[in-house]
Amino acid sequence: MLALGSRRYGLAAVVLILAGACTHASPGPETPRWVDLTHPFDETTIYWPTSKPFALSTVHKGPAGGGYWYEANNFEAAEHGGTHIDAPVHFAKDRWAVDAIPLDRLIAPGIRVDVSGRVQDNADYLISRADFIEWEARHGRIEAGSIVLVRTGWEARWPDKKRYLGTDTTGDTANLHFPGFHEDAARFLTQERNVAAVGLDTASLDFGQSTEFKAHRVFGAANVPGFENLTQLGTLPVRGFRVIALPMKIGGGSGAPLRIIAEIP
Amino acid sequence: MLALGSRRYGLAAVVLILAGACTHASPGPETPRWVDLTHPFDETTIYWPTSKPFALSTVHKGPAGGGYWYEANNFEAAEHGGTHIDAPVHFAKDRWAVDAIPLDRLIAPGIRVDVSGRVQDNADYLISRADFIEWEARHGRIEAGSIVLVRTGWEARWPDKKRYLGTDTTGDTANLHFPGFHEDAARFLTQERNVAAVGLDTASLDFGQSTEFKAHRVFGAANVPGFENLTQLGTLPVRGFRVIALPMKIGGGSGAPLRIIAEIP
Repeated sequence: MLALGSRRYGLAAVVLILAGACTHASPGPETPRWVDLTHPFDETTIYWPTSKPFALSTVHKGPAGGGYWYEANNFEAAEHGGTHIDAPVHFAKDRWAVDAIPLDRLIAPGIRVDVSGRVQDNADYLISRADFIEWEARHGRIEAGSIVLVRTGWEARWPDKKRYLGTDTTGDTANLHFPGFHEDAARFLTQERNVAAVGLDTASLDFGQSTEFKAHRVFGAANVPGFENLTQLGTLPVRGFRVIALPMKIGGGSGAPLRIIAEIP
Repeated sequence: MLALGSRRYGLAAVVLILAGACTHASPGPETPRWVDLTHPFDETTIYWPTSKPFALSTVHKGPAGGGYWYEANNFEAAEHGGTHIDAPVHFAKDRWAVDAIPLDRLIAPGIRVDVSGRVQDNADYLISRADFIEWEARHGRIEAGSIVLVRTGWEARWPDKKRYLGTDTTGDTANLHFPGFHEDAARFLTQERNVAAVGLDTASLDFGQSTEFKAHRVFGAANVPGFENLTQLGTLPVRGFRVIALPMKIGGGSGAPLRIIAEIP
């Protein structure tokens, strides 16, 4: 197993080139390591203040009549809570629903952009076009078909609802405070870089104080899915990994619980 | 995206071959193609006769007050229905729940064993140890850490509940008829081959007429997850692919909706 340190980018790049054929089905020295970017769904999982939260109800847990152990549950939730996907149709008519998103928008080379230094004193920070231009100056152009993950540092606040959302009051959308994408950044990533998907470690593609959800609308119109409430972004290298993001296949869904991992060769 | 009709296997095979270069994330000879082994969750999704089925309820679908399009839904279901994972704890105390399963049990080299020829006149067929021994004689030993997918052909009956389960009556478990693993086969795969996980294109690891669920208990005791209600197994090669099976990360879940794909280099 190659356990690359997250700051050894030069080596990572070399390994990536060497590992160009590294999608082997058979085990061997190319076996990657994985980072799970997903929060679990449980009673602490954070949902939008107006949304139905996740609930698990026990059907059975214990010895069954036949002399064996048996556990089973039912569950319910809103599509948009916890680590989840926004399908383009969430904010854009006639765009892809969850089950219609092609797999090459969900499985693709990833990059990580870290804006946590700029965000710590500004819960209403808007991730800007300049953040990506600056990243490119240091790490190279964002290639078409990439999945762009932005770390704001908000992941460290999970599952403290008050600190993560800005409010822990049901129904209170007036006091939401967390970073999100500026609409110009959304335009840059979709129109000028043609990315496959985007994700971040906050509750929404748009910042907490948004009322017009312009980033959602730009990404949606461009058929670019969004991944929200990610975690462990701080453990990723800036590039040289692959994102595998597989949502629950809700037919016609506007969103869905998402299991998302990074695969590091 | 390849929208393959579930009964159009002949055509599907041709399309798959022609589409070999069509699911690229980015240009390049190493880019794999993917086969989605997952049924969508909708009103046709098949659940156990005693289980809560999948239900999607619309929160909003249409123009929102702010002048933009908006869609959002809530959903509910039993853990064990549609394409889903059985966590080992489903039938074995103190074994892994869904969120505790290591990723190397979910992402691993796959093999496909086809028993559809033996099953067509016997809906109560038990997948046997001999089926795997015979596969090995033709294709080589099943390596430790493999994910073993068994095609019974039942996938072609989806979503016809009566033909797929043997009954379409709520609560009727007496008339369930479909193939599943014999307990000896489960012992062989766990104890003698040390597989990572198993899956098949029926509603359960155990056959429909099972009352003791011995295959589930053997797999569970060995901490081997099971993938049920798979589809498109007929389009896979016998080996040389990787399974990526990412369940919804239900904390403490005994099972969960599963998005599962095969990646063919």
